[in-house]
Amino acid sequence: MDLQGDDLTEAVVASFDGSASDRYKEVTGALVRHLHAFAREVDLTEDEYFTAIDFLTRTGQISTGTRQEFVLLADVLGLSMLTVGLGNRKPPEATQSTVFGPFFVEGSPEAKLGDDIANGAPGQPCLVSGKVLNTKGEPIAGALVETWQADEDGFYDVQKDLDGPQNRAHLTTDAEGNYRFWAVKPVAYPIPDDGPVGELLRAGGRGPMRPAHIHFMVTAPGYSRLITHVFAAGDEYLDTDAVFGVKQSLIADFTEHHDDGKTYYAVNYDLVLATTEETQQ
Amino acid sequence: MDLQGDDLTEAVVASFDGSASDRYKEVTGALVRHLHAFAREVDLTEDEYFTAIDFLTRTGQISTGTRQEFVLLADVLGLSMLTVGLGNRKPPEATQSTVFGPFFVEGSPEAKLGDDIANGAPGQPCLVSGKVLNTKGEPIAGALVETWQADEDGFYDVQKDLDGPQNRAHLTTDAEGNYRFWAVKPVAYPIPDDGPVGELLRAGGRGPMRPAHIHFMVTAPGYSRLITHVFAAGDEYLDTDAVFGVKQSLIADFTEHHDDGKTYYAVNYDLVLATTEETQQ
Ligand SMILES: [Fe+2]
Ligand SMILES: [Fe+2]
Repeated sequence: MDLQGDDLTEAVVASFDGSASDRYKEVTGALVRHLHAFAREVDLTEDEYFTAIDFLTRTGQISTGTRQEFVLLADVLGLSMLTVGLGNRKPPEATQSTVFGPFFVEGSPEAKLGDDIANGAPGQPCLVSGKVLNTKGEPIAGALVETWQADEDGFYDVQKDLDGPQNRAHLTTDAEGNYRFWAVKPVAYPIPDDGPVGELLRAGGRGPMRPAHIHFMVTAPGYSRLITHVFAAGDEYLDTDAVFGVKQSLIADFTEHHDDGKTYYAVNYDLVLATTEETQQ
Repeated sequence: MDLQGDDLTEAVVASFDGSASDRYKEVTGALVRHLHAFAREVDLTEDEYFTAIDFLTRTGQISTGTRQEFVLLADVLGLSMLTVGLGNRKPPEATQSTVFGPFFVEGSPEAKLGDDIANGAPGQPCLVSGKVLNTKGEPIAGALVETWQADEDGFYDVQKDLDGPQNRAHLTTDAEGNYRFWAVKPVAYPIPDDGPVGELLRAGGRGPMRPAHIHFMVTAPGYSRLITHVFAAGDEYLDTDAVFGVKQSLIADFTEHHDDGKTYYAVNYDLVLATTEETQQ
């Protein structure tokens, strides 16, 4: 009774003493202490409190099966990259991880090696290939490669009113660890800024642009799941990614080719998985 | 590029350098630093990150015009009471503030002094009265008193499928500062625990109960808005309020009376407003 200041904070922390697990108690205790320290440091006003309540409510309500505004919020606050860094301590030979992003969709179409997964999306043809390897450089056969990316207009399929997926598929590596598909050359795009996260970016004087990239999620038995992007070298937004996701090692050349008067691009990037033993969680 | 650890945190903070106001920059900077410090302290896993994303999304999506799950979340994490404490530094003569709670509704019915606002809600009749005063003990005429409370079953009107409001009204004090209405005797009740906040309470080994109380929001020109409760003396949950809202000075006796074989209760409590000058924001 009559709780305030540090007494209030410690009473809330103690209220979790009967938690279902020690981890739940640890996480909630740290959350309460940091949340209260934040509010005290900025001397949070009641108007700001209600503004935050409204902001978070709308962030939940604009989210759908194909739009995840809370992931976007975590992305622009750097929490996603921070969590990626905390959760992916692995050997330097392994491909680095980056943000998952809000546009993954369960149940993508299956593709065979060499298929065109663009499915009519606007953009310049791009051959995407490489191998899935272990940290010794040996191929991993039968690895599952999920890929998704935006089109030339900067939109993912789920942001458009379409019947079927575009630039989104899963495929399985062959005996030599190869993956290979045709999609379109990715371009820099703005993250969706017509919702609460867009308000935050504008109020913060920040831009919404992400450098051009292709998303990958790779899984294979015995290996830790890899969630990453391959970024296009030379993109003007590599240093100012709205979600802080760029790693030097994830940048690859998208080379221009001409064949019979037609132009296409190609990128080759090997995706190197760490075993679960090699990955310190 | 290649941001991680403290470099990542400071890059995110710096991304708000162009904020629309110094205050926005200050609040976002502190938010980012405390959010990152929390994630680092607990070594937040990717599973926990996604669990949190899902929890927050559902917290937004279960909210409606009459249910505010994010207020409830802030309540059970003590953030609401902390903010109340930060925002209401006022003279000791003034009535203390407590949480707003998730059940206020704009546009309550107008009542005249002495009206029965229970409107058929189950419960024992209770006469609620008092004066609205300034810190010198002088009456404030024409103050607007908003009141709302749960019924004998522990439910607010908006939690039930009703045509009209129950135990909810606004009235105006008379020349002597009096307010007075009939409602039902409030009882202890559980906060809604059929949503994400209920999951949190159960995982935390916490109970959902709040001691019996009546909500008040009082406004008058020249005075700071008072948001508070009057709690029922003797309630078994006064020391374990799920939202940490009890102040000793807000506890009042609900006395039993008998009139012509009928039983009713009465509580008298003066609501003392601080002027805006007396209130240090
Ligand atoms: Fe993306
Ligand atoms: Fe209440």
